[in-house]
Amino acid sequence: GYARVDTHRGVRTGDPEVVYAAGKTAAETVGIVTALRAASGDGRPTLVTRAGRETVDALLARWPDATATDPARPLTTVAVGQLPPARGRVVVVCAGTSDAPVADEAALTAAASGAGVETLRDVGVAGLHRLLAVRDVLASVDCLVVVAGMEGALPSVIGGLVGVPLIAVPTSVGYGAAFGGIAALLGMLTACAPGIAVCNIDNGFGAGLFAARVARA
Amino acid sequence: GYARVDTHRGVRTGDPEVVYAAGKTAAETVGIVTALRAASGDGRPTLVTRAGRETVDALLARWPDATATDPARPLTTVAVGQLPPARGRVVVVCAGTSDAPVADEAALTAAASGAGVETLRDVGVAGLHRLLAVRDVLASVDCLVVVAGMEGALPSVIGGLVGVPLIAVPTSVGYGAAFGGIAALLGMLTACAPGIAVCNIDNGFGAGLFAARVARA
Amino acid sequence: GYARVDTHRGVRTGDPEVVYAAGKTAAETVGIVTALRAASGDGRPTLVTRAGRETVDALLARWPDATATDPARPLTTVAVGQLPPARGRVVVVCAGTSDAPVADEAALTAAASGAGVETLRDVGVAGLHRLLAVRDVLASVDCLVVVAGMEGALPSVIGGLVGVPLIAVPTSVGYGAAFGGIAALLGMLTACAPGIAVCNIDNGFGAGLFAARVARA
Amino acid sequence: GYARVDTHRGVRTGDPEVVYAAGKTAAETVGIVTALRAASGDGRPTLVTRAGRETVDALLARWPDATATDPARPLTTVAVGQLPPARGRVVVVCAGTSDAPVADEAALTAAASGAGVETLRDVGVAGLHRLLAVRDVLASVDCLVVVAGMEGALPSVIGGLVGVPLIAVPTSVGYGAAFGGIAALLGMLTACAPGIAVCNIDNGFGAGLFAARVARA
Amino acid sequence: GYARVDTHRGVRTGDPEVVYAAGKTAAETVGIVTALRAASGDGRPTLVTRAGRETVDALLARWPDATATDPARPLTTVAVGQLPPARGRVVVVCAGTSDAPVADEAALTAAASGAGVETLRDVGVAGLHRLLAVRDVLASVDCLVVVAGMEGALPSVIGGLVGVPLIAVPTSVGYGAAFGGIAALLGMLTACAPGIAVCNIDNGFGAGLFAARVARA
Amino acid sequence: GYARVDTHRGVRTGDPEVVYAAGKTAAETVGIVTALRAASGDGRPTLVTRAGRETVDALLARWPDATATDPARPLTTVAVGQLPPARGRVVVVCAGTSDAPVADEAALTAAASGAGVETLRDVGVAGLHRLLAVRDVLASVDCLVVVAGMEGALPSVIGGLVGVPLIAVPTSVGYGAAFGGIAALLGMLTACAPGIAVCNIDNGFGAGLFAARVARA
Amino acid sequence: GYARVDTHRGVRTGDPEVVYAAGKTAAETVGIVTALRAASGDGRPTLVTRAGRETVDALLARWPDATATDPARPLTTVAVGQLPPARGRVVVVCAGTSDAPVADEAALTAAASGAGVETLRDVGVAGLHRLLAVRDVLASVDCLVVVAGMEGALPSVIGGLVGVPLIAVPTSVGYGAAFGGIAALLGMLTACAPGIAVCNIDNGFGAGLFAARVARA
Amino acid sequence: GYARVDTHRGVRTGDPEVVYAAGKTAAETVGIVTALRAASGDGRPTLVTRAGRETVDALLARWPDATATDPARPLTTVAVGQLPPARGRVVVVCAGTSDAPVADEAALTAAASGAGVETLRDVGVAGLHRLLAVRDVLASVDCLVVVAGMEGALPSVIGGLVGVPLIAVPTSVGYGAAFGGIAALLGMLTACAPGIAVCNIDNGFGAGLFAARVARA
Ligand SMILES: Nc1ncnc2c1ncn2[C@@H]1O[C@H](COP(=O)(O)O)[C@@H](O)[C@H]1O
Ligand SMILES: Nc1ncnc2c1ncn2[C@@H]1O[C@H](COP(=O)(O)O)[C@@H](O)[C@H]1O
Ligand SMILES: Nc1ncnc2c1ncn2[C@@H]1O[C@H](COP(=O)(O)O)[C@@H](O)[C@H]1O
Ligand SMILES: Nc1ncnc2c1ncn2[C@@H]1O[C@H](COP(=O)(O)O)[C@@H](O)[C@H]1O
Ligand SMILES: [Mg+2]
Ligand SMILES: [Mg+2]
Ligand SMILES: [Mg+2]
Ligand SMILES: [Mg+2]
Ligand SMILES: [Mg+2]
Ligand SMILES: [Mg+2]
Ligand SMILES: [Mg+2]
Ligand SMILES: [Mg+2]
Repeated sequence: GYARVDTHRGVRTGDPEVVYAAGKTAAETVGIVTALRAASGDGRPTLVTRAGRETVDALLARWPDATATDPARPLTTVAVGQLPPARGRVVVVCAGTSDAPVADEAALTAAASGAGVETLRDVGVAGLHRLLAVRDVLASVDCLVVVAGMEGALPSVIGGLVGVPLIAVPTSVGYGAAFGGIAALLGMLTACAPGIAVCNIDNGFGAGLFAARVARA
Repeated sequence: GYARVDTHRGVRTGDPEVVYAAGKTAAETVGIVTALRAASGDGRPTLVTRAGRETVDALLARWPDATATDPARPLTTVAVGQLPPARGRVVVVCAGTSDAPVADEAALTAAASGAGVETLRDVGVAGLHRLLAVRDVLASVDCLVVVAGMEGALPSVIGGLVGVPLIAVPTSVGYGAAFGGIAALLGMLTACAPGIAVCNIDNGFGAGLFAARVARA
Repeated sequence: GYARVDTHRGVRTGDPEVVYAAGKTAAETVGIVTALRAASGDGRPTLVTRAGRETVDALLARWPDATATDPARPLTTVAVGQLPPARGRVVVVCAGTSDAPVADEAALTAAASGAGVETLRDVGVAGLHRLLAVRDVLASVDCLVVVAGMEGALPSVIGGLVGVPLIAVPTSVGYGAAFGGIAALLGMLTACAPGIAVCNIDNGFGAGLFAARVARA
Repeated sequence: GYARVDTHRGVRTGDPEVVYAAGKTAAETVGIVTALRAASGDGRPTLVTRAGRETVDALLARWPDATATDPARPLTTVAVGQLPPARGRVVVVCAGTSDAPVADEAALTAAASGAGVETLRDVGVAGLHRLLAVRDVLASVDCLVVVAGMEGALPSVIGGLVGVPLIAVPTSVGYGAAFGGIAALLGMLTACAPGIAVCNIDNGFGAGLFAARVARA
Repeated sequence: GYARVDTHRGVRTGDPEVVYAAGKTAAETVGIVTALRAASGDGRPTLVTRAGRETVDALLARWPDATATDPARPLTTVAVGQLPPARGRVVVVCAGTSDAPVADEAALTAAASGAGVETLRDVGVAGLHRLLAVRDVLASVDCLVVVAGMEGALPSVIGGLVGVPLIAVPTSVGYGAAFGGIAALLGMLTACAPGIAVCNIDNGFGAGLFAARVARA
Repeated sequence: GYARVDTHRGVRTGDPEVVYAAGKTAAETVGIVTALRAASGDGRPTLVTRAGRETVDALLARWPDATATDPARPLTTVAVGQLPPARGRVVVVCAGTSDAPVADEAALTAAASGAGVETLRDVGVAGLHRLLAVRDVLASVDCLVVVAGMEGALPSVIGGLVGVPLIAVPTSVGYGAAFGGIAALLGMLTACAPGIAVCNIDNGFGAGLFAARVARA
Repeated sequence: GYARVDTHRGVRTGDPEVVYAAGKTAAETVGIVTALRAASGDGRPTLVTRAGRETVDALLARWPDATATDPARPLTTVAVGQLPPARGRVVVVCAGTSDAPVADEAALTAAASGAGVETLRDVGVAGLHRLLAVRDVLASVDCLVVVAGMEGALPSVIGGLVGVPLIAVPTSVGYGAAFGGIAALLGMLTACAPGIAVCNIDNGFGAGLFAARVARA
Repeated sequence: GYARVDTHRGVRTGDPEVVYAAGKTAAETVGIVTALRAASGDGRPTLVTRAGRETVDALLARWPDATATDPARPLTTVAVGQLPPARGRVVVVCAGTSDAPVADEAALTAAASGAGVETLRDVGVAGLHRLLAVRDVLASVDCLVVVAGMEGALPSVIGGLVGVPLIAVPTSVGYGAAFGGIAALLGMLTACAPGIAVCNIDNGFGAGLFAARVARA
């Protein structure tokens, strides 16, 4: 049989059900989602993270109105079921195309968790003018999610500009001394700017869920 | 001269001014606090973290009504000036006496940042019944700060019980394979429970400030 | 020729012969098992760990009544020969499907080593109620084997509930700061709960053998 | 006040109460032991680990019939109260004088936990003849505790000789690439010999408790 | 006798002689400097790095017109002999007081190596406006030395603003996951901005010498 | 759409535009280069680094007069557009064939950034006579780039011979304790010879750009 | 052209020429060997290490009387040309089949370097009786090479038995906390037995050459 | 009582008895040496390594004709008893004063183990001319011991010049990314030059003993 599924979390938190698709076959994943949607029956969406192409296709074939992040990227996030009404405001920021899949996982997770979400791309440390241009937007939201690879300096810079809760997500993007995300992780943990908390490397899901909990309150 | 001080942060965020006392003499620290209090002049408290005994004594001599954490512990936090009115509710949880200084730094920081704060001590993984007894309290606050050393399992357990934003703070408490907080840090970053974000090892200040920003909103 | 085989261990311990199939061809493995079974001739089973699909098929073709763990999982354990009568009682606990192959290796090893074995799946930190429901079972056995990936908090929690010898096995399941099992390994080594000892990452074989030695005494 | 003390563990397991004295003053430690002995009232001993000279003196002044390991060594273990009757048989093995404090902590813990205990010193990898001379003793006990620093090869060698449960304890003894016990820890975790489980670096207490639980059963 | 001294380097490079005072007594250091100044006899200064208070006092007693960095800081740099005429322009940037000793070592080394040097303090990532205010200065020099601890994000930000050669120096300032300068080192090595090269942790001397070689050309 | 491109960097620095091709399809890369060349329109070349065979072929098909490093090597660098006139003199040194791709990336980057460049191959630590033969050449250039894998000793040796700015680039060449470039990286960072600065593992691009900035000044 | 080859080493040392085949095509390798044999012309063999199947086949096609280690193993060593007369005596020891390729590389290298060589397989820590049986052989040779993976305890044990120079070679064999040879490497570096020196992980070539230099003296 | 001493090693190897003084009191060390000299009674010297000032003084008071390395250095080596006649020739090489204590431990150990020993100081990578001047000496000995801290490049350079067995000893000298000897250790393990074997960080004793075994043969 499939893995046991926990169907009562959403009742107390408003969080979606979630299936981590890495290491599961497309059929297994569709089976688990089917079971979850039957059990919950409350309109909450079911989130599937880290789905490969085959799994994404199977999910979209079964639930054609599901919402998915860019299926051309290696790992895709899919939300099955209607997204809840948006409470509060989360902004997800990332610097480069390589960080996009993690940023998109965060954004779709936050939306599926009931927050209003916007994404700002190409806002990197190297283009400070662009950062300064959106400073007022960033300063006005309920929670920021900042995604960065390599040296992970972006949260430091944004954290120095605004005073809102900021979740930093290191990505495994980079080479050499980036060590698969360790450089960015350490940089974010030791950031001088106050009010930054950090999620696991590439964990857009965790950051998006955290941000939605803050925003929706 | 003393270090240049940034006196406009509080205006936009409600955060206190803060002085990191480690590596500064008592006289230097008193001097910086004096300058900050003259410059801000707005009633916000000034926070001093990681103060040694001599510095604590000098601060309390100069500002007798300052609030300080236990001066018998190695590193003390002091809030000079009146604490702001409490908005929202933060609970700081820790398991053992050794983690208390970090938990206290988090709690006083959150209070000085304008949040209502309670601290629950002796709530460890080994005493699940005590955790279950306070579950409803934990589930009702705006933000949790969970402080733990050694294997850092407490956030995993609490994160599985409640759906509120949870800031985990690893401490350097432990020996051998605890590696000065690395075991707890990795455990918290990889916690299965969703909705957990992590601060630097022993960084009670960062966690308290983050939690207050969430709670105050 | 094949590797030299040690055929006198079982006489003194009751342990099965064991072949580590990783890096050996199906033919090599069948050859070694054949030699072992000819040499021992005492009814003890021969255990093959970390067998790939081809090797499993070859073993089951040659010894159709062999016992195997789920061949759909990447790495399978096979016990050739009749399992010995069960002395004592071992329980193997794991939280998720991903940890199942390691848990199954531990369980079949313990059974092939002469212990009575049960497996409890889906008993994770996030579902404390389920853990509490089986607490009396866990407290009554001779030895526990607790398998967990990611932050590896499960042994901490179970070790706080019961006072029986507990072997913790970290798995390489996880991503980012899980570092292929390091986070779980460190968490288990530094667990606050007393009476926990740890095996190598993914070493279900070692844990199962240890537990059987304890149980059968 | 002192730390909250858990006074019901012994009832279910036969384990002693335990106080970790590192980081506590002599007065604090005496206070906690006094409280524990008042609360338990059942004749079980109270164990104090990692006590410095001053704390040892204070404990022995207050409870003159307490049992203590060598007070000339940096960290001493003290058992306050009468040791329980010995059930089963544990042998603690170590190679050198430097490993003695950890071995002694293990031995006194096992005794205070109700096991019969012997200690074999100077049984190192470099003196195989001495190991072979005690092989029959080692093979006949309920549980072995093997303590070693530097490269930690002793458990590998003993584990190849006998088929009893073996708890390996790496120590922080060594220099250079010993890295404070990491070399020994990794060596023990990856030992080829089966039936070895490992405790944290310098964790004689954990090993002794584990061994007693096995032996007493 | 004292260590053999290499007295021909300056002839080909214009670099000062240098003595690394850490681990040498005041008398030893004075002796080596005396020998070097006798041997070179060419007016080039002799640099002493990482001198403790006693050594600084001895050097200043013997050569009253020597140039020294702040003797109140733990480790001081002293240049004995007249500084050479300044060719080219180096700017040393640092964010905080804690990084000052390393920045000062870099600045005095560059000056003693024949470059014109200015130092900008308190130019941190958290105060972008101040960085932007000096952007034209930074963009016009021959070589920048940027000193930073914690997450070491300052070189990333400055490297995104200007196109001059930039030497980044990580400092051991920080706690927890700063790991004595590793976080800053990794951050600087993986900085997205191009044209950044990195020196060893706390190696202000190496950075100052490198910058002077570039500036003087 | 493609990634946003920064088209004003060259104006202030003389650096080429650059596209990091790893993780992009051939079509994406050609598209970005086309956009960049349309936008800049100033004759500066566009650099593509880490291009695979397919991308190299697509670039050369579209811009037949582009300059490319050896396409038989795993990762190729391509400069589209005319190389600028050479100002100053950079020499790139490497010891072995395995380090050649990184050395070539550095050399073509420096040329595309406006420096005169030569490459010296087979100049290793094991052949000191060859090094000594080119000593006068090395001592006369504006900036050296020294590329080395394994233990990375070459910069130490060259840095002891000449007094010019030296950028060291560790490569991921090696096995075992080379740890994918970490041994070389640490060796270069701690080199005793002064005047050495280090780039990220395999970062020939960064070193070439840095060297050109120095040389062209 | 091919890599520059150093053809004068053998004259002074008696060592063979050597080609590291990893990362070279079969054709490249054959070309380099051809050039080396033409240049040296002195009857010394040419050694090729880490050759894949295709390269081995090409070498044996061109030089049918070459000596090769087991071509069924992943990486093969080939000696082209007649092996020199044997001076002195080297014994290579290894415990398991998995370590055989490294042991064979060491043995063929030592033979090609002019030493007499024997190999003892299946001499592991778990079979002490077999070790004791060959103790007199081990004690009588000029140099030992001991190859081991996992915890690498074999050199400790042999080093405690005999007083001859012993080169220990860690292999990358193992899983989990073996960390690709790090556990064995650290174990060998910290071995208590004196007279042990260590080569890089999997570096059978280096150990064989070292041993031959000792033996042939 | 004192530690058990192994008094039969010298008979088979010609090695001295050895006492590791770190962590022993002066009185304990004198006691052990007295016991060893009584037991051996064969004229072999007894070596004491890592002795502090007090221990050195006690040893020299008791055995005035003992040989000691520089007692002004932190850790001293003392040989009690007459040094044996010198067989063969060992040269110990080091670059700087800081490495001298380790080099001296190696040299006195080799002498006490029956080898003829010379020491060459100040032979660093930065002074190649000096290295080249002694090349013929280095090439003519039986075994070299090369001691180096920081990046540890000296063995690479010497190993490229001569074809004799070379034992490399990394020292913990250095700062920042030297990581207490790790940089030098990795550099030596991965050295491109063949015929290098490595001892533990700061283990002059092990290197000296190994070299003497080679030289004396
Ligand atoms: N990146 C992630 N995406 C989805 N779930 C995750 C992720 N990281 C951790 N999880 C947890 O993994 C569980 C889902 O795993 P599974 O039941 O195997 O699908 C959820 O409870 C999540 O809290
Ligand atoms: N996970 C494992 N499965 C089976 N054997 C193991 C494992 N880990 C270590 N071993 C040891 O490896 C030996 C079997 O290896 P082999 O002789 O190559 O088949 C046994 O002696 C086991 O004790
Ligand atoms: N931070 C530093 N300060 C001074 N010298 C250094 C430093 N780091 C490395 N060195 C080198 O150490 C040598 C001086 O060491 P010493 O001869 O012991 O005084 C010089 O050749 C420098 O190149
Ligand atoms: N640096 C060292 N100096 C002396 N002995 C050492 C050293 N490193 C390891 N040892 C070993 O430690 C043992 C001496 O330790 P001990 O009996 O405690 O004096 C000898 O057998 C040596 O082989
Ligand atoms: Mg980024
Ligand atoms: Mg804790
Ligand atoms: Mg798990
Ligand atoms: Mg030991
Ligand atoms: Mg900083
Ligand atoms: Mg190289
Ligand atoms: Mg092995
Ligand atoms: Mg050195």
